[in-house]
Amino acid sequence: MNPGFTGSPLDRADRLRSDVDGYAAVLSDWRARILTLDGLDPVVTADGGLAWSTIAEIHVEAELILLGLADEKPHFVPLVEAEGDVFRSPAIWRALSMLPAEDAAIYGTARSLIDWHNSHKYCGKCGGSTSLFRAGWGRKCTACAKEHFPRTDPVVIMLAEYDGKALIGRQSRFPPGNYSALAGFLEPGESMEEAVRREIHEEAGVQCVAVRYVTSQPWPFGGSQLMMACIAEAHGDAITLDTNELEDAMWVTKAQAKDALTGADARVFNAPPPFAIAHTLLKYWAEED
Amino acid sequence: MNPGFTGSPLDRADRLRSDVDGYAAVLSDWRARILTLDGLDPVVTADGGLAWSTIAEIHVEAELILLGLADEKPHFVPLVEAEGDVFRSPAIWRALSMLPAEDAAIYGTARSLIDWHNSHKYCGKCGGSTSLFRAGWGRKCTACAKEHFPRTDPVVIMLAEYDGKALIGRQSRFPPGNYSALAGFLEPGESMEEAVRREIHEEAGVQCVAVRYVTSQPWPFGGSQLMMACIAEAHGDAITLDTNELEDAMWVTKAQAKDALTGADARVFNAPPPFAIAHTLLKYWAEED
Ligand SMILES: [Zn+2]
Ligand SMILES: [Zn+2]
Repeated sequence: MNPGFTGSPLDRADRLRSDVDGYAAVLSDWRARILTLDGLDPVVTADGGLAWSTIAEIHVEAELILLGLADEKPHFVPLVEAEGDVFRSPAIWRALSMLPAEDAAIYGTARSLIDWHNSHKYCGKCGGSTSLFRAGWGRKCTACAKEHFPRTDPVVIMLAEYDGKALIGRQSRFPPGNYSALAGFLEPGESMEEAVRREIHEEAGVQCVAVRYVTSQPWPFGGSQLMMACIAEAHGDAITLDTNELEDAMWVTKAQAKDALTGADARVFNAPPPFAIAHTLLKYWAEED
Repeated sequence: MNPGFTGSPLDRADRLRSDVDGYAAVLSDWRARILTLDGLDPVVTADGGLAWSTIAEIHVEAELILLGLADEKPHFVPLVEAEGDVFRSPAIWRALSMLPAEDAAIYGTARSLIDWHNSHKYCGKCGGSTSLFRAGWGRKCTACAKEHFPRTDPVVIMLAEYDGKALIGRQSRFPPGNYSALAGFLEPGESMEEAVRREIHEEAGVQCVAVRYVTSQPWPFGGSQLMMACIAEAHGDAITLDTNELEDAMWVTKAQAKDALTGADARVFNAPPPFAIAHTLLKYWAEED
């Protein structure tokens, strides 16, 4: 199914994160590749891939995050101090529509880690300042020594299904005509299946029981997320919209979903882009027997 | 399949979290039930359920977390200042072996939230102090106004499968003879399926391709976690153990798994308890045709 942001060719080499000598060797490897960013945005080269530089080209005091190894070469990203609102950065969407899947996966990992470092400079436990450790895969409090690890929020994204149709919705911030799968953060104390049922009921007033998991995707924007795509069997098709969450919701047929995914003139809505798991999920559902 | 810590009967009533008047009404409802804890441990009544008290019985300045509604009654847990290492608290394991599933789910939610509040008293962004908001489902920075929401870490837990056998392992801190499914935290930039393959390879040196999702469970200890249980098809059965992670790993047959799950005298290992998803997963696998 190849959801977006999956398929990184890098070996994360987690053993190096706690191996002082091994990591020192990697840091001084002249073959190292350093991911080039424009602020937080990816830089796309003339041949359509991510841009990389050499260790000689970066500031000597830059803090580095080890993304992993490929062909024995270490791959790093420098920890840049920047903030970004992805919905206000058309450059990212353009880049993602061009980058090969492997490069989007590398960028997603780098972006998730940078954003996490920048929002965790202080210890939640004691308020002390934290500093990078474990090759960029953690921060440690300089005051109480508590170790902090990158955060990834589980998110459920799903289609309710009833009588051969699937439920999709749109938020008011979406471009006109765009619809997607419903989605929401999983909360402490619930399973994936419980979160799916709760979110569909909260947002659209639709009751579901059986939940099928389809696939998953990491999502690097607005905090690192794990998107878990599911299909849930609904008891009925009456919609009660939570207008704080959704501007509209509607049931679509498999033919309508296919028209949207292929951009047919006759489409009744615009589908999410291929690198969004809502696209993968809708396609999977539309093509099921 | 009914994994442990699922099946809470409470309606989370998330609309009340941002409804000032509605929440004030709920806070002054004399029918409210307040979860009784002993430090962080659950208190089990004579009839085997969680102990609850009334709003009249708690300290007037206690901060409350709204767990949800049942039979129109609001259910709260007070935010206690306590830390606990679950592996040193036999009281919890005794309680979990007695509590009905619904009560374990309520306790799990309460425990996850309390631990999160106690480890997020300061803002990771600016170091300012934070205070509880949204009925206990968030904290807000008193300095920079950043809003923080409860953290849940996605964890993969899985059996590699080869030639009708499943791979299980034990950590040195486990009681003698105990084995479980391999498990590890999902990292930023990877899907569930990628995390499953990486963890099995890191811990046991076994390569897998196809990954099947089975079910999920919230786990409230050592930070709130979402445990995602999977089965992965292995290419071979040669084990290369990462002795930093595992003390031992072995391949077991379905008959051996069944003996362990039923506690048969002939068992070659001790299985995890029923409220652990490793138990649910092993049982699912052992009973597959
Ligand atoms: Zn600290
Ligand atoms: Zn702050």
